[in-house]
Amino acid sequence: MKTYVYPKSQALFERATKVIPGGIYGHLGPSNGCFIPVSAYPFYLSRAEGAYMFDIDGNKFIDYMCAYGPNILGYNHPEVDAAAAAQQKLSDVTTLPGSKMVELAELLVDTVDSADWAFFAKNGGDVTSLAVMTARAATGRKKIIKFKGGYHGVAPWTQAYGNPGILQEDVMEVITIPFNDLEALSLAVDANPGQIAGVIATPYHHPALADNALPEEGFWQGVRDLCTEEGIVLIIDDVRCGFRLSVNGSDAYYGFEADLICFCKGLANGYNISALCGKEEFKGAVSSVFYTGSYWLSAVPMAAALKTIELLKEMDGPAIMRRLGLRLTKGLEEAAQKKGFNLRVTGEPSMWNMRLTDDESGILHQKWVSECVRRGVFFCNHHNLFINTAMTDKDIDFTIEVAEEAFDVLKREGR
Amino acid sequence: MKTYVYPKSQALFERATKVIPGGIYGHLGPSNGCFIPVSAYPFYLSRAEGAYMFDIDGNKFIDYMCAYGPNILGYNHPEVDAAAAAQQKLSDVTTLPGSKMVELAELLVDTVDSADWAFFAKNGGDVTSLAVMTARAATGRKKIIKFKGGYHGVAPWTQAYGNPGILQEDVMEVITIPFNDLEALSLAVDANPGQIAGVIATPYHHPALADNALPEEGFWQGVRDLCTEEGIVLIIDDVRCGFRLSVNGSDAYYGFEADLICFCKGLANGYNISALCGKEEFKGAVSSVFYTGSYWLSAVPMAAALKTIELLKEMDGPAIMRRLGLRLTKGLEEAAQKKGFNLRVTGEPSMWNMRLTDDESGILHQKWVSECVRRGVFFCNHHNLFINTAMTDKDIDFTIEVAEEAFDVLKREGR
Repeated sequence: MKTYVYPKSQALFERATKVIPGGIYGHLGPSNGCFIPVSAYPFYLSRAEGAYMFDIDGNKFIDYMCAYGPNILGYNHPEVDAAAAAQQKLSDVTTLPGSKMVELAELLVDTVDSADWAFFAKNGGDVTSLAVMTARAATGRKKIIKFKGGYHGVAPWTQAYGNPGILQEDVMEVITIPFNDLEALSLAVDANPGQIAGVIATPYHHPALADNALPEEGFWQGVRDLCTEEGIVLIIDDVRCGFRLSVNGSDAYYGFEADLICFCKGLANGYNISALCGKEEFKGAVSSVFYTGSYWLSAVPMAAALKTIELLKEMDGPAIMRRLGLRLTKGLEEAAQKKGFNLRVTGEPSMWNMRLTDDESGILHQKWVSECVRRGVFFCNHHNLFINTAMTDKDIDFTIEVAEEAFDVLKREGR
Repeated sequence: MKTYVYPKSQALFERATKVIPGGIYGHLGPSNGCFIPVSAYPFYLSRAEGAYMFDIDGNKFIDYMCAYGPNILGYNHPEVDAAAAAQQKLSDVTTLPGSKMVELAELLVDTVDSADWAFFAKNGGDVTSLAVMTARAATGRKKIIKFKGGYHGVAPWTQAYGNPGILQEDVMEVITIPFNDLEALSLAVDANPGQIAGVIATPYHHPALADNALPEEGFWQGVRDLCTEEGIVLIIDDVRCGFRLSVNGSDAYYGFEADLICFCKGLANGYNISALCGKEEFKGAVSSVFYTGSYWLSAVPMAAALKTIELLKEMDGPAIMRRLGLRLTKGLEEAAQKKGFNLRVTGEPSMWNMRLTDDESGILHQKWVSECVRRGVFFCNHHNLFINTAMTDKDIDFTIEVAEEAFDVLKREGR
């Protein structure tokens, strides 16, 4: 099997470092330890289609990062793009909203169990922050409980004191406890009587650079009961899982109801939109928060979201992704075993996490992942991966074949 | 002249209130006091083109709100839309960036005087918050000075304690002083020796519901000198003015250089993108801040921004908007005088503010604005207005004609 090289990506990255801090920003760049070894990865794409992306050196990859989630129906989905283009011809960002905004809110209310209303913004972090402000406005309390390793964006309250640019004041009213730990939650609530405004959590635990964890039996019911008893607003950050586990909300998938639920990545197949939805009793509180943005009335992403949700419902997208994810993760585990390695798969199959446990340092896993990337299977080692509905059984077969060859390289090179 | 009515807008708004908090969110809705009297305004659009928008009742308006700024070349500009559509066929939100990101950063560095680098996000508030975090990371200091009435988005640090959802901790390191007041700035710096991380300001003062103010002679040079002496990061929030006053940055327009400069609304003719640019010495600090978002690699808005900036430079868009704005504001002042009223125009001509001073309560001004709206000239009474390059002298003539008729209504109704 031919292995890829990236001379054009590397040259463009050199050019980029002159005019972009870090060359590529956020956690996405090659200079931040996420894509290691750097030589194994492309940096820039020329195009993408369906399950695939093509880098500027002409290499083709099955993309299991799915743009970190937004690619849920396949890149450049013709029906979604047609709906967006039709709206673009009419209007996008305008002084007043279009009627698509009302239609999309109605569709979310019809589709998501815990949604009595919807509010639209541009980023997951826009709506997790709005949810926290709404919980504070609704309760008149200050403190927020979150779970260790849970990711809710980059706003100061989500970060740790000591991170560059973050003040102690930014995080002093945020309490962090372990996921799946009802006792820790009870203790935190008891230690701060009448002071907890909200609990924010992802529907299951999908931290970076660590095994993922599904909610334990009774966990969500316990959280829900405690929040109800204590008048605490239960916020579900469904930015990453939303519409991949269930079109009805990941709270519904796990058998409970959130008070506020945050959507973003799965909502519009990549068109730029996020949404906060919630229960009727918080409609006044969310209205009272001063919150707006330059492009939040954009009609094009709303048209794309309407079509994306319609298609996901029609085809039962979450079931398709679950089936493909189960087949793939089972195949990868078997490939590892066959070649004498141990692969631990955690999380939900449609957005699984994996690591080789033969080497706790993670270096062996990095090496295996990078040998897959060099052969056209884009995995990363620091984050859960994603399935989309454009992937096929043939893609899964090819991926397993590549994974086996990558294991052979590890064996050949004496691990 | 026929006056407009809005039965379809009003019916859709009734429907919207069921599923959207406040019906239309942010400061944009009819229920928040910005569009008064409510009966004078449409709520929902069917389409927009060039200088115009069309509501769902079929009424046509010259839109002087320009989507609160993003409409700078005219709605649905054919060349910008073609550049965006061409990129959409290749890719938009993907796992890795496209080469357009590098090209756009290079173009901004070439175009904006104080830009040695660029970082892209989705909203003005994304980059004003990043600028503040960068100032804190660069200096190791906590306090930020801003100007009373200055708008920098909706993040908690920009708001006031007492606003719903805002904690005292959110704003306790923010000092607010009057614009154009160098003495107040000196006093604030002296009172907090070695503690001021940054000063953030719009290039001129354009608060809502108040006269706007240009920088007084020597103000910016004084601010710049003090910041340089004290090691304070000077942040210019050019979200609203950027590319309307000058393609080189509004700091250049007023003859000084910012350390960090925030762009958004004028950048891509409505496609969803914002940018933080800055001086070389802050490249390390901005890289050190953990900051990323779900759609921040979107290639389509980057392609749109490349074309928008190219066109604005080619045609000298700021000069066109200044000329039209001067003609319009002069015409409106004369129309007022001719009809026995006094109109005070403040701010820059391409994004002027105005109010009738015959009645300090603002009710007369509201009435005049609403009579303009009912005749197809979309003004608002709470915010500066905007010119775009698609407007023509014929539009200005029509606007002045409508303004005169609206003054006649005020006279007829005994003010």
